[in-house]
Amino acid sequence: MSLLDDTVKGIGPLDRDAMARAKARLDSLAKPPGSLGRLEELVERIAGITGRDQPALPRKVVVVMAADHGVAAEGVSAYPQSVTPQMVLNFLGGGAAINVLARQAGARVVVVDMGVAAELPAQADLVSRRIGPGTANMAKGPAMSREDAIRAIEEGIRTAEAEHERGLDLVGTGDMGIANTTPSAAIAAAVTGLPVARLAGRGTGVDDAGLSRKIAVVERALEVNRPNRADPVDVLAKVGGFEIAGLAGVMLGAAARGVPVVIDGFISGAAALIAAGLAPVVLDRLIAAHVSAEPGHRAVLDHLGLRPLLSFEMRLGEGTGTALAMLLIDAALAIPGGMATFGEAGVSGRIGT
Amino acid sequence: MSLLDDTVKGIGPLDRDAMARAKARLDSLAKPPGSLGRLEELVERIAGITGRDQPALPRKVVVVMAADHGVAAEGVSAYPQSVTPQMVLNFLGGGAAINVLARQAGARVVVVDMGVAAELPAQADLVSRRIGPGTANMAKGPAMSREDAIRAIEEGIRTAEAEHERGLDLVGTGDMGIANTTPSAAIAAAVTGLPVARLAGRGTGVDDAGLSRKIAVVERALEVNRPNRADPVDVLAKVGGFEIAGLAGVMLGAAARGVPVVIDGFISGAAALIAAGLAPVVLDRLIAAHVSAEPGHRAVLDHLGLRPLLSFEMRLGEGTGTALAMLLIDAALAIPGGMATFGEAGVSGRIGT
Repeated sequence: MSLLDDTVKGIGPLDRDAMARAKARLDSLAKPPGSLGRLEELVERIAGITGRDQPALPRKVVVVMAADHGVAAEGVSAYPQSVTPQMVLNFLGGGAAINVLARQAGARVVVVDMGVAAELPAQADLVSRRIGPGTANMAKGPAMSREDAIRAIEEGIRTAEAEHERGLDLVGTGDMGIANTTPSAAIAAAVTGLPVARLAGRGTGVDDAGLSRKIAVVERALEVNRPNRADPVDVLAKVGGFEIAGLAGVMLGAAARGVPVVIDGFISGAAALIAAGLAPVVLDRLIAAHVSAEPGHRAVLDHLGLRPLLSFEMRLGEGTGTALAMLLIDAALAIPGGMATFGEAGVSGRIGT
Repeated sequence: MSLLDDTVKGIGPLDRDAMARAKARLDSLAKPPGSLGRLEELVERIAGITGRDQPALPRKVVVVMAADHGVAAEGVSAYPQSVTPQMVLNFLGGGAAINVLARQAGARVVVVDMGVAAELPAQADLVSRRIGPGTANMAKGPAMSREDAIRAIEEGIRTAEAEHERGLDLVGTGDMGIANTTPSAAIAAAVTGLPVARLAGRGTGVDDAGLSRKIAVVERALEVNRPNRADPVDVLAKVGGFEIAGLAGVMLGAAARGVPVVIDGFISGAAALIAAGLAPVVLDRLIAAHVSAEPGHRAVLDHLGLRPLLSFEMRLGEGTGTALAMLLIDAALAIPGGMATFGEAGVSGRIGT
């Protein structure tokens, strides 16, 4: 059996007993039941994922996967492809937004080269899991072979496995890849069946002409490749990207190990569509950090049935939303152990109970 | 001139120069302009409030003001009035939700007795600014005298002043007071003119009968007292509460000292309606932490023109939402100093620029 099949089969249902114990603890605390809203929901969900009724998740990692996209040649991005390797070096140097926000959240940043078009200097901190020097141009044919799509997912699974061996309680998924909102929109259109014009947005900031071109390019890619929505690997191979595949693998690999996954924006959403296509049960283990400014992101989250924690009009990627979400998750998880119960605090219960 | 008049006159406009410098710095960082969405908006706003283009706000306080309400006698709360002093002791003991969340945010919790009905044991940590042993029952007459309303606001101003002397960069407003969503709904109805049924909610969790009773009580209080919406002190005196008045004072006092104010839920929203009625310019200095599960809160924020950072279905009060918001504010403020510029990172700019 392949690593992918094995991993998919390894993702079980949530631990309902742990969730019930977590809820009982929350209801014993000196506050009206449920009055901490989504904080309590997070505690229960994470209890179900980890099997622990008072979970703490100190060892946090944001995995930032980088890759290039042949479709950048169609002029769908506001920035040149050279920015992908430049930003990888910026991540390694600690000066990017994700570095700053991950420091706030107490998370390590793990930078993975899934297939940047340029040669990157070998660096101890850079994890190389390259599938190739960027995908092919999906407007003219498949972005990658089916074999490479599976390889890329499996490299993502191995990334989760390697980080889990180093110590991993909570993982965030981040991305870098000039033009990668274009394949993400194509995946979203292929999987949800929604019109491309509703899903494609301005990404890093294309103008009106750029947006029209981008929509036309995605429509052409879908027409040329005819991805089969019932086959997530086919969708990924034909209109996906190496980092999108890798992030789907991180989601599956972490889920199989009982590690909650915080997913970032539109690119992580596209990866989640692929991961959930392969293993619908993974959705119970994904926490949507935010809904981004990219218009297709809300539609993707709705399709997945995930409610974002934040709506901050962010559109940077890199996992920036996941770092913010980790701050809120840590706050939620401090509640069950930190608060006094009604009994401990000597606080009266509801009238008539 | 009174302390209140003096304070209102001391609140100036935002520092537009500092905001422009903050924006220039944000736009120089290696990311598409504006791509960090509301994080960037927070940085600019706080620059405008503090007059510093790279502000940091390490000294944080959540002021939790507690008081009782005569209207509790009408059966508008799911909990007995004895819970107010019990929760004050729980705050002082460190076991309440606000203690846990404030610790996460690195904020001190300052507990202020604005007028709890019970005698509280003298404790070093408890700030006593009592106006009286709870308000009178607003369903039968004014909640307090006009003089007491002004005194209560001024005690709030003095609270901000005292904390500012101890060192205060950011303040959150929290509340405790059994039945206090009832006067808050009355203030909201008086100021916005919206129907009570749209503004009154279940608070800590009253049932359908309790909610109907609560709506009727608020309508009666408005009819009996006829508060003058053009006179915020009249509204506050007739249908307000001591902690609501105090929190309005904290907002004004902090604003006058260039300290940003994070406001919590429905009760803080009612206090903000009073504060903004006295000094509309205070609104530039308020940051809405969240929109609560209490249905009237959204209407109050819309009336104030404030956009909440979070929508977490919380309905606990205590300032719990402000502590979460402080985590996000700290993350935002880490950006300008922590990130590399395009030049420093060697990252290319937009195509064609």
